[in-house]
Amino acid sequence: MNALPERIAQQRALAATLGDGWLEGPSCEPYATDAALIGGVALGVARPASTADTSALARVAVAHRVALVAQGARTGLVGAAVPDRSGTQCVVSFDRMRAIRAFDPANRSITVEAGVRLSDLNRVAAEAGLCLPIDLGSDPAAGGLVGANAGGSRLIKYGDVRRNVLGVEVVLADAAGTVIDALAPLRKRNAGFDVTQCFIGANGANGLVTAVSFALAPLERSSCAAFVAFASYDAALAGLLAFERAFGEMLSAFEFMSAAAVDCVAAAFPAVRVPFAAGDAACYALVEIATGMPGLDALLEERALATLDALANERVVLDAACAPAERFWRIRDALPAAVAQGGVPLSFDVSFPRGALAAFITDAEQWIAAAHPSLSCHAFGHFGDGGCHLVVSIPHAIAQRYGPLQQVALRGALYDRVVRAGGCFSAEHGVGPVNVAYYRKLVPAESRQLAAAVQHAIDPLGLIGRVRY
Amino acid sequence: MNALPERIAQQRALAATLGDGWLEGPSCEPYATDAALIGGVALGVARPASTADTSALARVAVAHRVALVAQGARTGLVGAAVPDRSGTQCVVSFDRMRAIRAFDPANRSITVEAGVRLSDLNRVAAEAGLCLPIDLGSDPAAGGLVGANAGGSRLIKYGDVRRNVLGVEVVLADAAGTVIDALAPLRKRNAGFDVTQCFIGANGANGLVTAVSFALAPLERSSCAAFVAFASYDAALAGLLAFERAFGEMLSAFEFMSAAAVDCVAAAFPAVRVPFAAGDAACYALVEIATGMPGLDALLEERALATLDALANERVVLDAACAPAERFWRIRDALPAAVAQGGVPLSFDVSFPRGALAAFITDAEQWIAAAHPSLSCHAFGHFGDGGCHLVVSIPHAIAQRYGPLQQVALRGALYDRVVRAGGCFSAEHGVGPVNVAYYRKLVPAESRQLAAAVQHAIDPLGLIGRVRY
Repeated sequence: MNALPERIAQQRALAATLGDGWLEGPSCEPYATDAALIGGVALGVARPASTADTSALARVAVAHRVALVAQGARTGLVGAAVPDRSGTQCVVSFDRMRAIRAFDPANRSITVEAGVRLSDLNRVAAEAGLCLPIDLGSDPAAGGLVGANAGGSRLIKYGDVRRNVLGVEVVLADAAGTVIDALAPLRKRNAGFDVTQCFIGANGANGLVTAVSFALAPLERSSCAAFVAFASYDAALAGLLAFERAFGEMLSAFEFMSAAAVDCVAAAFPAVRVPFAAGDAACYALVEIATGMPGLDALLEERALATLDALANERVVLDAACAPAERFWRIRDALPAAVAQGGVPLSFDVSFPRGALAAFITDAEQWIAAAHPSLSCHAFGHFGDGGCHLVVSIPHAIAQRYGPLQQVALRGALYDRVVRAGGCFSAEHGVGPVNVAYYRKLVPAESRQLAAAVQHAIDPLGLIGRVRY
Repeated sequence: MNALPERIAQQRALAATLGDGWLEGPSCEPYATDAALIGGVALGVARPASTADTSALARVAVAHRVALVAQGARTGLVGAAVPDRSGTQCVVSFDRMRAIRAFDPANRSITVEAGVRLSDLNRVAAEAGLCLPIDLGSDPAAGGLVGANAGGSRLIKYGDVRRNVLGVEVVLADAAGTVIDALAPLRKRNAGFDVTQCFIGANGANGLVTAVSFALAPLERSSCAAFVAFASYDAALAGLLAFERAFGEMLSAFEFMSAAAVDCVAAAFPAVRVPFAAGDAACYALVEIATGMPGLDALLEERALATLDALANERVVLDAACAPAERFWRIRDALPAAVAQGGVPLSFDVSFPRGALAAFITDAEQWIAAAHPSLSCHAFGHFGDGGCHLVVSIPHAIAQRYGPLQQVALRGALYDRVVRAGGCFSAEHGVGPVNVAYYRKLVPAESRQLAAAVQHAIDPLGLIGRVRY
């Protein structure tokens, strides 16, 4: 931690150079995510209003060796946008950079500043029948979407953020506050190494993303949805493959949830009606089919029913209901809160090759039942893309037996099982202070050293972001 | 250039360490692309049979400071896989690394070694109703696909190679011949900075790609196609937007070709039947609609006809024909050869925001007509993704007036117009010895310096590939 006089000198230098009110005083706000673990204290909060402001800030920060932590809508889940507790890091809030720089319906693209929220962007895009098809439970800003390389529930059809970014504008932490302008909204651009990629999924490291160009997709014009009960996860996989054979790229979501997790929803939120009794189901899936081609609703539903009928005849499907998708998404969206009730939730965000998901979930459930019989374990998430959210719930009555050390041990043991099953310990949430220790433990040294070399090349002073690779 | 004794010493070192026949002697083969400009002389051709072989080769190369140039199927168009003329660079051919390491239909993924051809990969994938939907005029190997970040004619629906890569395995040029294993076929993987991206679209620089994991898409099961005449490029854009409104993500290609280019096809290849007389058309488009959902052929054609009918009533479309797509692709595929007949072709591979394409083509045609009235200019390519292949044809009779210097001047002047119109000078072909001078001239210094810093971090000795950023 810097000594107090040095900190005051840094603050004065920032304030004197930047002036004009867009640098605020020291901050000790509660942060949205997991504040107990990662709440930090900022040297100050800089609120640039433009790329030029951000470049000026970078120059001062470099001159005075002030670390910068970019902050968008503070919806991240790993603390990558939260300063540490030292009081030496300056938060860079992009809440004043909210301009839509260009909206080009003919090109199906939009260029926005880092602070523009996903919902705002999509409101503009919708006026021309377009959208950025990243479907999340939160409403991040554009800079955060890029930093986290967000995924979401429709990834099976639309891909992650990286697959929808056409370009970025970035400010580097060098003496000149260099601005990288790689914003051109071009779908084909192979004019040398694509520097854009150095900032997507970098968890706020490497540079300050000030603007982003996204490709937009046509809004969905026809859709249908089903809620389907399966006797096993293997059956769910067979169901997924059958729906892909029947609908190809139109399958837009295949979200799974364990029967126990759905029971939690029924218990916690009686108003969210689960369409049928669980019976012998091991899990359910929310199946959604959607296309930008209008007028296909009836045909899609007819095909979905035929597909379900065939699967029921093969005993792959136990039961199913078709209805407007919103109704089933209410169940899916209620899951995280429902499984967290009555206990302290330990959440895991992991991914697998789709064929390995079933075995992992069974393994995890059995291991928890054997090694931690007092805890419950709920699995749900994105079967279609291999993503799995696992929530281990510690009943309040025994919470004192699971202090931080015990939680870390449990988490580590479960991650080891993830890696043994060919999975990834952070599917969509990225890496930040909350989980960087697992990054160091679970990602091969060769990859980490390469990431570190690239980071050092781009940000040699190590001033940007919370993660040192 | 190395002195001869040093070269012989390097060859002996390589041969002694690698032994066992997989290093061949000096090579001076003609290369497929633009041999007159870029044909090179190799110190030798190493043909590793495994990742371990490649790592051993990298170690020897580092010890003896031998530059390595990776070679796949030699289908590249910018010379990035061709050694220079110094006789000091060792070609690394991946033609022995052709194993399909894993094919996982349940995960819709395939992991192949660098030497596996796109067609071979797709033959295997097709057995499970899947494909890697990169649609090219050539048949590159997996390593080349990654190095070039290939695009192709169906990019509008499926994206480029980057959007279909799940992971790579790479050998670095360091003392240990480090192997980066980032091959896991995971769709959601945000476990820290994604090192994979450092090698996609790097034009063979940074490291030796030894294996790739691709996501596979369901094969197309329903489709229809139309060949459409437009009075102007602006009308073609209106047509593109109308088809996107009618079919959303099912629009799989919207290839345009100038009326003059189609006339060349009719003249050069009478067997390739153009469906109707040009009349007042400024350009044509091959419109293809395709989906993985079976049984929609009739519905798609009915909708396509309705869309065309409405466009014809608005005078956007002059004439149109529907037929199986193969027939129209024959016209499209004949274009490059047809426009090259009767002259020396100067080819450009450029891209734009889609709304800027029409103005650029008009500008380029008018400029050629005014500044180079003896030359003809043909535009065709990928209206749907903004990609444009422009071929300026120099009649043989006046070819002596357009020597290398005049060609370079013409090329430079046209690229300046591309950049002024917001375009990119290399859309899909990437950067190699053939066009690296334009990279240095046309890409902003900030981006080039960043690319150079990253390259230096990954390959500090500068031993891999032909492009120094």
